[in-house]
Amino acid sequence: MTNITYAPNTFKAMTFHDVTHAFADGSDTPRAYLERCLEAIESREPSVKAFASFNKESARKAADNSSTRWKTGQPLSSIDGMPIAIKDLLETRDMPTQMGCKAYEGNFPKNDNAAVWALRQAGAIIAGKTVTAELGGNHPGPTTNPFDTARTPGGSSSGSAAAIAAGMLPAAIGTQVGGSIIRPAAFCGNFALKPTQGAIHRGERQATSMSTHGPHAGCIEDMWRVAIEIAKRTGGDPGHRGLMGPDKAPAPVKPERLIIIETEGWPRVDDTSKKAFANLTKFAEAEGISLIRRADHPAVEALEISIAAATHVCGMITAWENRWALRNLIERAPNDVSVRTQETVANAEKLNPDDYRSLLAKRSYSRHCHTELSSLADAIITFSCPGPAPHWSGDTKGEPLAPRPTGDAVFNYPSSMLGAPVMTVPMMAVKNLPVGLQVMGQQHEDARIVAIGRWLHETLPPIAIT
Amino acid sequence: MTNITYAPNTFKAMTFHDVTHAFADGSDTPRAYLERCLEAIESREPSVKAFASFNKESARKAADNSSTRWKTGQPLSSIDGMPIAIKDLLETRDMPTQMGCKAYEGNFPKNDNAAVWALRQAGAIIAGKTVTAELGGNHPGPTTNPFDTARTPGGSSSGSAAAIAAGMLPAAIGTQVGGSIIRPAAFCGNFALKPTQGAIHRGERQATSMSTHGPHAGCIEDMWRVAIEIAKRTGGDPGHRGLMGPDKAPAPVKPERLIIIETEGWPRVDDTSKKAFANLTKFAEAEGISLIRRADHPAVEALEISIAAATHVCGMITAWENRWALRNLIERAPNDVSVRTQETVANAEKLNPDDYRSLLAKRSYSRHCHTELSSLADAIITFSCPGPAPHWSGDTKGEPLAPRPTGDAVFNYPSSMLGAPVMTVPMMAVKNLPVGLQVMGQQHEDARIVAIGRWLHETLPPIAIT
Repeated sequence: MTNITYAPNTFKAMTFHDVTHAFADGSDTPRAYLERCLEAIESREPSVKAFASFNKESARKAADNSSTRWKTGQPLSSIDGMPIAIKDLLETRDMPTQMGCKAYEGNFPKNDNAAVWALRQAGAIIAGKTVTAELGGNHPGPTTNPFDTARTPGGSSSGSAAAIAAGMLPAAIGTQVGGSIIRPAAFCGNFALKPTQGAIHRGERQATSMSTHGPHAGCIEDMWRVAIEIAKRTGGDPGHRGLMGPDKAPAPVKPERLIIIETEGWPRVDDTSKKAFANLTKFAEAEGISLIRRADHPAVEALEISIAAATHVCGMITAWENRWALRNLIERAPNDVSVRTQETVANAEKLNPDDYRSLLAKRSYSRHCHTELSSLADAIITFSCPGPAPHWSGDTKGEPLAPRPTGDAVFNYPSSMLGAPVMTVPMMAVKNLPVGLQVMGQQHEDARIVAIGRWLHETLPPIAIT
Repeated sequence: MTNITYAPNTFKAMTFHDVTHAFADGSDTPRAYLERCLEAIESREPSVKAFASFNKESARKAADNSSTRWKTGQPLSSIDGMPIAIKDLLETRDMPTQMGCKAYEGNFPKNDNAAVWALRQAGAIIAGKTVTAELGGNHPGPTTNPFDTARTPGGSSSGSAAAIAAGMLPAAIGTQVGGSIIRPAAFCGNFALKPTQGAIHRGERQATSMSTHGPHAGCIEDMWRVAIEIAKRTGGDPGHRGLMGPDKAPAPVKPERLIIIETEGWPRVDDTSKKAFANLTKFAEAEGISLIRRADHPAVEALEISIAAATHVCGMITAWENRWALRNLIERAPNDVSVRTQETVANAEKLNPDDYRSLLAKRSYSRHCHTELSSLADAIITFSCPGPAPHWSGDTKGEPLAPRPTGDAVFNYPSSMLGAPVMTVPMMAVKNLPVGLQVMGQQHEDARIVAIGRWLHETLPPIAIT
């Protein structure tokens, strides 16, 4: 039996910020903390398969250096000594970057992605690379869901989400284009932040207009600290102001009014999950929070209409933007790229620049509709995923390929389309599996939605329905 | 004697659009046209040194295919069969991409940059890679100015500009971050377009927020056709609508009012060049065009003030944006990156994200000031370069490095800062060397400034002062 139990009121992931006082007083060390992580990895990795590569010796050395800094009272930041895993799409100078794609087997550019560089500057320990669905798309890697190994952990940040769920590490970096941070985080009971578009520098990964780096973590405090320690050093993407905010997680802020959006995903949510969400909103109302739905206000309806085809719009925008690189890759290595990815490129190649302009115009209009809501409520909430992680046991030879082997990102495309910051908060359990609550703010309101998410998490009781 | 004479009224570069009728009627072929280019290259390349690599056999094969298409009345576009050179910063699947940098010697990624792919789709012949200053910066390559081999051709698109000037090819692709298209084009008597920021897809080169691909050509018609045939296939950068316009160069449009800006470069212009410019403006006034200068309108003054430090602002923004990639490169290959580039990175590393935000705010304000001028005049004109190309005979051992070995981009930073389209028109000769006139429009007015540049070129007499 390799599954671990999930119940939102008792599950405890690894956390880091709450042990550093012991690094300071000498009763614990980053090296000892790392060894605890490595033990957890050793125990859980055979069934979870979260990692694409490790660099244990380098990590141990970095941990020893961190131990010395804490001992002498000179940590580089509050995350000095934190073991972090990096999604295997981002370059790391000391580990290969294979992107879950056969065509990149052995790829080892010996560069650090800007965020990885920043983490090292902050003293964090780059412990390994986590499995990504192929090239950040939807062709799955080997990772399983730690709460039920017969289920997907979600994707494409599969390994990052699963490593947190399995208690292997306190934090991991994911990336999201469609729903690749929030969906797996929600399926795996993580806290995670998909920041405002452009808020955290993506380094060499600048090809697409909707993609972000973001932290997966076992608690809000660690999640925020990882994000801000990167952003303090790299700022945002070229041309973007980047994430700003406090060094520690923002204090909880009680929202007065919350908009609930249903998106095109609502009809796909199972009844038990809907019941969990309804219970959660009842508790919110009991705290005096006003809830505003589509039927209550025409501006909410306008937003819902503008994002009604978010899956299609985001999918096609991203496919078009990736076609140049992917076409080169497929021509170089036609047998080493999955059929799923090849199909995505083939779809992109049916588009022309005018189609792309039309998609951008739709995106632009949806952002306008979102901005119009800025004074109507403090934030928007919805599901982070349409119910618990689905079963996934691999493709069946001779059968058509499953359309969404890493689960359905239908609740995640809206924030990607809007360039808006979202946080997923693990506040529901449906049949002993995690289901995330998603909190979305206006662009650049990253700190504000974390403050609201924190209040919701600390105030409302978690919901568990079996 | 390897120099060729420059006089703007008699100089004739290679042109393409005016021979394709002969491809259609069979009296000429793209293969024969290519062979004429190769002859010119053979004759001039030993002194001009415009090329980093060739692919003659592949070019000949592509030309033969084009010949067949024209013969059967099925050219892929109006530039089918046009031999084009690609600045050696852009990836080409059939030639190395060495970026003028020792650390990239032998680099051969076997990808096509999106623009290169589009050119091939349009039937154009990718004839070679042209020399770039190291990594698109200011450390010069071996290329000389075809009009005086003791002078720089400008940079960083040195080889592209020189190849046009030497009559080797009808068009070449350059790139500009600071002044890397317009400056060398102006020093070499080219027509060239630095499009609106984001107007032409940059493919894998997305690292910086101010950079563009653009065509160098021997005439306006070829220049425009190259730009639009790329944009029709790739559109703009991710998130950008991209260049739109007619298939042939826009018809000439007479401007009623032109703003003259002097920028921080004016005091650096020699008196002879100033006299040439003054003569040109007299002819413009004689045609009934109103000229508006800083002293005539406070909004022009506001723009001039907002771009007064464009060299510094653009230089630091770009240095910051390039630091992630360059730092990795320098750590990998410390001895294979020039001291000039190392100094740029060192300067960037003195900045932090707040400095960068402050620079972006200045840029944003300058764009506001520019937009405010949109109804005051039809376009803005100024020099493309502060006089003719300066002498350059290489660094002297033991002496400090020359600060601007590829000439001064002081007149080019404003359009980069503003993200505005500019065209350089070869309308002046100072002491038998080319000096360009720069025409700038509002963002997305690429076709309009080409129409105005065309009118100026076709109507005003070129100025030659010795």
